[in-house]
Amino acid sequence: MADISLLGISGSLRSGSHNTGLLRAAQEELSEGVDLRIYDGLRDVPPYDEDEDDEDPPRGGEPAPGELAGSDGLLIATPEYSHSIPGQLKNALAWAARPFPGSALQFLPVAVIGASTGAFGAVWAQAEMRKVLAASGARVVDGEVALGHAHERFDERGVLLDEEARSQLRDVLGLLVEAVRLRRSAPVG
Amino acid sequence: MADISLLGISGSLRSGSHNTGLLRAAQEELSEGVDLRIYDGLRDVPPYDEDEDDEDPPRGGEPAPGELAGSDGLLIATPEYSHSIPGQLKNALAWAARPFPGSALQFLPVAVIGASTGAFGAVWAQAEMRKVLAASGARVVDGEVALGHAHERFDERGVLLDEEARSQLRDVLGLLVEAVRLRRSAPVG
Repeated sequence: MADISLLGISGSLRSGSHNTGLLRAAQEELSEGVDLRIYDGLRDVPPYDEDEDDEDPPRGGEPAPGELAGSDGLLIATPEYSHSIPGQLKNALAWAARPFPGSALQFLPVAVIGASTGAFGAVWAQAEMRKVLAASGARVVDGEVALGHAHERFDERGVLLDEEARSQLRDVLGLLVEAVRLRRSAPVG
Repeated sequence: MADISLLGISGSLRSGSHNTGLLRAAQEELSEGVDLRIYDGLRDVPPYDEDEDDEDPPRGGEPAPGELAGSDGLLIATPEYSHSIPGQLKNALAWAARPFPGSALQFLPVAVIGASTGAFGAVWAQAEMRKVLAASGARVVDGEVALGHAHERFDERGVLLDEEARSQLRDVLGLLVEAVRLRRSAPVG
């Protein structure tokens, strides 16, 4: 039984997504007592609509908040679309950020990583994602994995070959677990 | 018969949306020969999925690209969610930006305006929206209408009362029309 349960969300719906691959690699780099489940409901998250955000529990479909409530921390892997974050991922976070204050995202430890086929796309998208999460009251940890030229870094089965990236993943997971333990020892909200 | 056909997209799905109200106000401030239709398909735009973006014509549903193709220019009114742009609007623009090059957005004159109930939200969201549009190859005009404290600026029927904002709307529409005429006189792509 894991002591710490993390939820991973890949912002890409593509079947061979490098970002989903990055989350799978993270599952291989977990320390003892830490579990990471990959969220599979992103495609079904409905468009965010302010008219419906005060319903309790949140409206039908399967938005992320229900899944978040049972998680100790969140690991987001985001691709870059048009120099920013994916719309569907933003839809999910908009629901998750409500109600404010008191949402499942508020005070939640979150780490952001990402892969892109270009050189810098992963960096731009992550910066925007961190801003959005901070605005939602999440505790965004400082680490980063920005995997550029992602198409050259996985084998044909989608396994991450880049040892430096794996080392960065371990660092980020360490920071995320540390933030979860800190929250437990000094709970707020 | 209008000489110039503009398409307006409100990034908010809320029934009493201030951003949709801003587009309605823009319809009242058009100069002779200019038409502005408000897009009503945003809720039905499917989540952007790279696996499907090379289908031609683009996949089912009613994404914005089909509507864009018949428009001379685009007027986007964006709310601010978590210091950034709405996910569903980003979904629509992701489809509209494909294929690249050669998308309906490329070289398209676009103006960005927006309303938020806070003081600065409209400014943040518009800055991000301009970055995304520029990355997609659109011709983003320089004007801005960033309506803060939006809930104080409409009457109970949703009519914009703020004369300064109406004057700014006329300025932005003028720049957008100028960009459309320039494109006609010097077509590229």
